Amino acid sequence: MHLFVCLFALLFSSSSQAADFCVAKLKGAGNPAGYACRMPSKVTVDDFVYTGLGVAGNTTNIISAAVTPAFVQQFPGVNGLGLSMARLDLAPAGVIPMHTHPGASELLFVVRGKITAGFISSLANTVYVKTLKKGDVMVFPRGLLHFQINDGEINAVAVVSFSDPDPGLQITDFAFFANNLSSELLEKSTFLDDAQVKKLKKVLGGTG
Amino acid sequence: MHLFVCLFALLFSSSSQAADFCVAKLKGAGNPAGYACRMPSKVTVDDFVYTGLGVAGNTTNIISAAVTPAFVQQFPGVNGLGLSMARLDLAPAGVIPMHTHPGASELLFVVRGKITAGFISSLANTVYVKTLKKGDVMVFPRGLLHFQINDGEINAVAVVSFSDPDPGLQITDFAFFANNLSSELLEKSTFLDDAQVKKLKKVLGGTG
Amino acid sequence: MHLFVCLFALLFSSSSQAADFCVAKLKGAGNPAGYACRMPSKVTVDDFVYTGLGVAGNTTNIISAAVTPAFVQQFPGVNGLGLSMARLDLAPAGVIPMHTHPGASELLFVVRGKITAGFISSLANTVYVKTLKKGDVMVFPRGLLHFQINDGEINAVAVVSFSDPDPGLQITDFAFFANNLSSELLEKSTFLDDAQVKKLKKVLGGTG
Amino acid sequence: MHLFVCLFALLFSSSSQAADFCVAKLKGAGNPAGYACRMPSKVTVDDFVYTGLGVAGNTTNIISAAVTPAFVQQFPGVNGLGLSMARLDLAPAGVIPMHTHPGASELLFVVRGKITAGFISSLANTVYVKTLKKGDVMVFPRGLLHFQINDGEINAVAVVSFSDPDPGLQITDFAFFANNLSSELLEKSTFLDDAQVKKLKKVLGGTG
Amino acid sequence: MHLFVCLFALLFSSSSQAADFCVAKLKGAGNPAGYACRMPSKVTVDDFVYTGLGVAGNTTNIISAAVTPAFVQQFPGVNGLGLSMARLDLAPAGVIPMHTHPGASELLFVVRGKITAGFISSLANTVYVKTLKKGDVMVFPRGLLHFQINDGEINAVAVVSFSDPDPGLQITDFAFFANNLSSELLEKSTFLDDAQVKKLKKVLGGTG
Amino acid sequence: MHLFVCLFALLFSSSSQAADFCVAKLKGAGNPAGYACRMPSKVTVDDFVYTGLGVAGNTTNIISAAVTPAFVQQFPGVNGLGLSMARLDLAPAGVIPMHTHPGASELLFVVRGKITAGFISSLANTVYVKTLKKGDVMVFPRGLLHFQINDGEINAVAVVSFSDPDPGLQITDFAFFANNLSSELLEKSTFLDDAQVKKLKKVLGGTG
Repeated sequence: MHLFVCLFALLFSSSSQAADFCVAKLKGAGNPAGYACRMPSKVTVDDFVYTGLGVAGNTTNIISAAVTPAFVQQFPGVNGLGLSMARLDLAPAGVIPMHTHPGASELLFVVRGKITAGFISSLANTVYVKTLKKGDVMVFPRGLLHFQINDGEINAVAVVSFSDPDPGLQITDFAFFANNLSSELLEKSTFLDDAQVKKLKKVLGGTG
Repeated sequence: MHLFVCLFALLFSSSSQAADFCVAKLKGAGNPAGYACRMPSKVTVDDFVYTGLGVAGNTTNIISAAVTPAFVQQFPGVNGLGLSMARLDLAPAGVIPMHTHPGASELLFVVRGKITAGFISSLANTVYVKTLKKGDVMVFPRGLLHFQINDGEINAVAVVSFSDPDPGLQITDFAFFANNLSSELLEKSTFLDDAQVKKLKKVLGGTG
Repeated sequence: MHLFVCLFALLFSSSSQAADFCVAKLKGAGNPAGYACRMPSKVTVDDFVYTGLGVAGNTTNIISAAVTPAFVQQFPGVNGLGLSMARLDLAPAGVIPMHTHPGASELLFVVRGKITAGFISSLANTVYVKTLKKGDVMVFPRGLLHFQINDGEINAVAVVSFSDPDPGLQITDFAFFANNLSSELLEKSTFLDDAQVKKLKKVLGGTG
Repeated sequence: MHLFVCLFALLFSSSSQAADFCVAKLKGAGNPAGYACRMPSKVTVDDFVYTGLGVAGNTTNIISAAVTPAFVQQFPGVNGLGLSMARLDLAPAGVIPMHTHPGASELLFVVRGKITAGFISSLANTVYVKTLKKGDVMVFPRGLLHFQINDGEINAVAVVSFSDPDPGLQITDFAFFANNLSSELLEKSTFLDDAQVKKLKKVLGGTG
Repeated sequence: MHLFVCLFALLFSSSSQAADFCVAKLKGAGNPAGYACRMPSKVTVDDFVYTGLGVAGNTTNIISAAVTPAFVQQFPGVNGLGLSMARLDLAPAGVIPMHTHPGASELLFVVRGKITAGFISSLANTVYVKTLKKGDVMVFPRGLLHFQINDGEINAVAVVSFSDPDPGLQITDFAFFANNLSSELLEKSTFLDDAQVKKLKKVLGGTG
Repeated sequence: MHLFVCLFALLFSSSSQAADFCVAKLKGAGNPAGYACRMPSKVTVDDFVYTGLGVAGNTTNIISAAVTPAFVQQFPGVNGLGLSMARLDLAPAGVIPMHTHPGASELLFVVRGKITAGFISSLANTVYVKTLKKGDVMVFPRGLLHFQINDGEINAVAVVSFSDPDPGLQITDFAFFANNLSSELLEKSTFLDDAQVKKLKKVLGGTG
């Protein structure tokens, strides 16, 4: 058997990488396929485990909700593997505002409480809304606007998974009102009233 | 040479499809990769040519602009080929309102006039805006909010290409205000004022 | 605004499908990209919601565990969207036996209890094992052997997500012992003893 | 164990397709991802075995060579699996003329004899040519012009594999001279002399 | 709202890259997915805008035509985004000679003038030729031989887009005659006459 | 013609890389798409040729067989090209034990001798076994367990190709018995007897 073992060892003896996984080196520059891989010899089981979703997010904020991501930036072990996760905490009346993930579809699993969720299709702007109870799953197709609201009486918790290690997150309100996009351009391109724009820019820290 | 020709003919004699192209049968059911292919024997050069972008779109409307698509639904020849096109016409002050393409990046080439275009990244909501002149090209990365405005004094024309035969188009205003999404849910998930929501629902034909 | 609405409606008027989603017609024949799409006009929100993971699987069986899948076959809404889910229930000492998913990576989130999980790399056969507590996440790279064991004292529950709507599941024991693969070929190709093979074939219903 | 077996059977009981494979139904219409799948229940081991490469191709033709493909059209079992094969037979002085595979890279393994092979890069038109002996492997990157010539004294045989089930084959001579492309357009777009064009059109059966 | 803003900032605080885009660092080594990304903090709107297509190419050359690319090498902003562009200028009788793009499909939009374009399928070498007028679009499937000729009386201009940031360009004449590929190998693999080969090698600078 | 040549040279003058190929720099860190590219100017034809498969593997070992890979680690020229190869040598009664390739499908071509090969589907654990003779081809779908046995009387040789430059190789026996996975966890997750586990751990060098 000795020779066989040697043969096997030989098989990858000149290899600096396995196809198996590619734990991200976040400090280096990424590329269109993700981040560079750490050397497998330096990888341990802790690179494949993430403990950050075990703690409830702080919902003492204006949306009464929190998103705790386990994307490749927080969890380098998912680099190149085509998926990631996040935890949602929503206090009663809490809301994850209307948003998209530019690069991924999403599956939501309700761990606790009751969540009303919905998305809007690009075809005829059809709305798909449903109130989900514990154990229900809902899918949000890639790139489409969607939201989640806790309309129960207890804190709600959900685990969401994505079809990409780096799904991105574009909250419409933040994209519109939390930067220096000029009110003039924003109003022309959204038909929102000047008063509305200025009010939300003030709340969300936008200028212009 | 006769035998060689026969050999070659033989090579694909049992084939009902070539890898070369897959002109869409739009009537049939699609699948995640696109539409089913028409039989190559029924395909002619006209399946690979689209003449609909040669005519200016009608900009006598509230946005003073028009989008004329050459997506797979209009131009079945691009099915499975990873790209499509559209023509933008913008009268002076015309605007293509804030929108996303859920499944594609976009390149815009200014054929005529002057267009101010911009997109918003999901990272820190950074705004990238530029006034483009004839001949300029701008890229809008997949899934991100962007807009185009004609701030010149003549009609502007642009040709835009996409990285997918079926890029989709989700105009935020339509997604928010042109359907039956309840004002309550919309207001909770966007922080927009009730008056603003009801005003735009009325304009865009929304209910609820 | 009327003209604008018309313009928008026109945009997809000849379209029988949107890029947004592709709810599976399971009765029809699939293809390498998944299943054919149902017509969007027949799709409702219930096609995007799956309630089957809300119920605990029956663990009164030899492995004291259960896998409840929400793959495309159970949840047609994920067709073409690059992800799926499942629920794991493990009674104390329950085990999801050594297995692979031929076409997907997996993320496991512990909803309840304590799970010891591990996978084996193809590079030098390195073992990555960890005991996970409630809220921990572990990733299992695509195609690699892995297992989960409840070594706590209460029932454990996990939600697992996959990077494909149809990840497949190949349990090594079933692949070896629950079919008509001849004992001779199996023993030659696994070095397992004849007595061991025959014992497990008997338990798992294999012949040959 | 009975319950466990039942559980497993249940897992896919409503499934009409496995992720494992997708043997092509060649008679039906294909789609951009390949052909529709045959029902797994009708698939046998013979769908995964192809015997057509065991017989030498007939090299009694003008190129003294033959290509015997095992593409998806001949070997439906490779549908959706990302690879295919072919056998090359070259009598002494035989040649596989300059050609491309529009959709695949190629690996050539010399089974017998001596083959001079080469490809031309698109970057600076660099030529990569080598005389290969039995057991040598050469890779031809996707879409680039390449050729193979037997410059040994015995029949040469090679097995070539492709990175796609349907790699396509475009022999430049046939593309130029074996159809009805007008001599005028051909000469303008290739700078070839009229006499040369007409000579080869005659040999290869072209018109125009 | 302050807490919410903090929360959002936190979301990507440890991130050195966004999924949104990946502007190429051309100086570094590329990889199969493209080039490494520049740090987003160093990216400005000018990285997403390319002005090089606004100027007519110089057509005072033997083909009376010019190709001005906006591929990833000229326009680093398209890196990883699945598309690129180029401008074609053709003086009367100008020609873009027979060529392929090894890695991309192409869409051509006629901005000015009249262009006769065609491609040749690998299936039975069928020719698809059409004379296009201003505003017409034609698609050339990936990897197939195609050409464009100005047979109008004014300069023609076209914008072409590709399904890849780095489509490549292999002009058959250059691949055959503009390098050191030996005349012997070239003649054997193309059936072209020695006089023809030597004539074009001389014109195009080839040796051997 | 001089100007045309210059034009062409200009086209890629600022380019440090072509789309054509990406010969791997194995010393550098890989990424999810493969390895970084060597500069094309340093690449020669020898980077596209591999001679290591011309020599029979040493079968004087416990399995009476040898696998000689031409994966990206041995043959850097295949990096990014979607395929690789290996050579199998099997002395009489030699066996390539039950294994998977986590990231690739496989095609096997019998060059010499007689090989019994089989794979097991994940759907109902169906076994597909066949005795292959010289010239036969068999496909093994990605990620599924399979094996090869020489049950002829002469040495058998096969060439196998993969749908990935880095297919990986997980031999079940080595994954189970050639590392430090504890006997307790292994037995619980495989139902193998303790004596069987300890016997094979001893033979294959495992501990725990």
